[in-house]
Amino acid sequence: MPNRRTVFFVSDRTGITAEMLGNSLLVQFDEFQFQRRTIPFIDSMPKVDEAIAEINATAAQEGRRPIVFCSMADEVAAERIRQRADALTLDLFQIFITPLEVELDARSSHAAGRSHGMASSHEYFARMEAINFTQAHDDGAQTRDLAKAQIILVGVSRCGKTPTSLYMALQFGVRAANFPLTPDDFADRRLPGSVMPFREKLFGLTINPERLREIREERRPGSRYASLDNCRHEVREAEHLMERERIPMVDTTSKSIEEIATTILHRTGLRRPVY
Amino acid sequence: MPNRRTVFFVSDRTGITAEMLGNSLLVQFDEFQFQRRTIPFIDSMPKVDEAIAEINATAAQEGRRPIVFCSMADEVAAERIRQRADALTLDLFQIFITPLEVELDARSSHAAGRSHGMASSHEYFARMEAINFTQAHDDGAQTRDLAKAQIILVGVSRCGKTPTSLYMALQFGVRAANFPLTPDDFADRRLPGSVMPFREKLFGLTINPERLREIREERRPGSRYASLDNCRHEVREAEHLMERERIPMVDTTSKSIEEIATTILHRTGLRRPVY
Repeated sequence: MPNRRTVFFVSDRTGITAEMLGNSLLVQFDEFQFQRRTIPFIDSMPKVDEAIAEINATAAQEGRRPIVFCSMADEVAAERIRQRADALTLDLFQIFITPLEVELDARSSHAAGRSHGMASSHEYFARMEAINFTQAHDDGAQTRDLAKAQIILVGVSRCGKTPTSLYMALQFGVRAANFPLTPDDFADRRLPGSVMPFREKLFGLTINPERLREIREERRPGSRYASLDNCRHEVREAEHLMERERIPMVDTTSKSIEEIATTILHRTGLRRPVY
Repeated sequence: MPNRRTVFFVSDRTGITAEMLGNSLLVQFDEFQFQRRTIPFIDSMPKVDEAIAEINATAAQEGRRPIVFCSMADEVAAERIRQRADALTLDLFQIFITPLEVELDARSSHAAGRSHGMASSHEYFARMEAINFTQAHDDGAQTRDLAKAQIILVGVSRCGKTPTSLYMALQFGVRAANFPLTPDDFADRRLPGSVMPFREKLFGLTINPERLREIREERRPGSRYASLDNCRHEVREAEHLMERERIPMVDTTSKSIEEIATTILHRTGLRRPVY
């Protein structure tokens, strides 16, 4: 397997940022198969040395040095990994700290574990409230308090409303309700009564009927609900309804949850606090 | 406001990775106030030029150049921003592509929009299934199919079970159920019957009683439920129960959702697929 390489994500915190940046780089080399291993919470010298030992054992075993994406606020720890790990070490953190120090004419605190945990109590509660709100207002489960929603996603069953609204709440702290558009609404040729007063908060999701069929088929194989005919009908009716009501729309077919959520926040101008 | 600076996150995709890495760097300069602005989906030259114009207008208006975290797969676009933006441009992508090309002895595809959207259909369904499963098994709402859970979080009301399990599903594609421990369970001195058969999948969340009081107080001000006495009692009983049953435990008090989720996945050895 000449194209198989092992990749480590080493972090003094969760490693999630290193994974995300690392993966967006690795995907550019699609003829390779990468074995990924995350080593989080490396926040002491003994742990640094354990991580180095693991990397070096892998290098020895595979006869080829691994790639290490390293995200460490402590510069001594980062330097030690760069020096002692038998690897291509890409340091996501230290490389940008120096230019920032020069630009800001200030010393960085080089403190680990700051980027998530230290959110203010106010931010924490706001984020929790968004998650609880979104959870309670999934799939039209609750119509009380819809006025408090920052956005209300509408669309046919299985077009991506639930994951998108949960992602908006978790990543961006946005109170995102979602509400299904059903055959009843199409027969009435109007929006569900509960969301009608909040038209300016509505955002539509739509999807390719073939793709919808695939998704529904996973859930209820062989059902009328999942049939291509029915999917075509529902999508067409939902799109007509949203067009008539001038509800903005995004096609979710070939988009990830991250992309759908970002597209909607971008188009609506909803603020993007980051945690 | 000498310590106020504007920061842009410019990306050919969602900008989420740039925001996360950028924020973990900016938090190291805590005497500064950063105004953040994300410009996502910059995937054509006209959009690149619009972004540059916005950055330069900000520089002119503030009399101080902004900081730009730039994540662009297209090297021509990235170079254009570095050259023409009146800013400190930190390029998260290009800086690592060259060493990776040398190490792998391969050319990168320099293709934008790959890191989330292109997940295989199998991965997509697995992630969706995890989200639906987690959503359906929140707060003990459903006990059917608990055998399919990869992990079941237990703990007192408001200790962080819901956001943690949702994050596990969304970020890591893990089917995470959660189940409350209530005064009834403490009176019985045993685990809830529905989770008993799955003891090896249980992971406990605990929390400082003062912090729990604060969180519950936000929800039901002045209630017995939120009182410090009751919080102390519930936390103590829950911890005793989990210790007796040898359920591993993590204290969520000063941890972010990301940290709680990562800690649990790390300690249980659950695989971490990345999307």
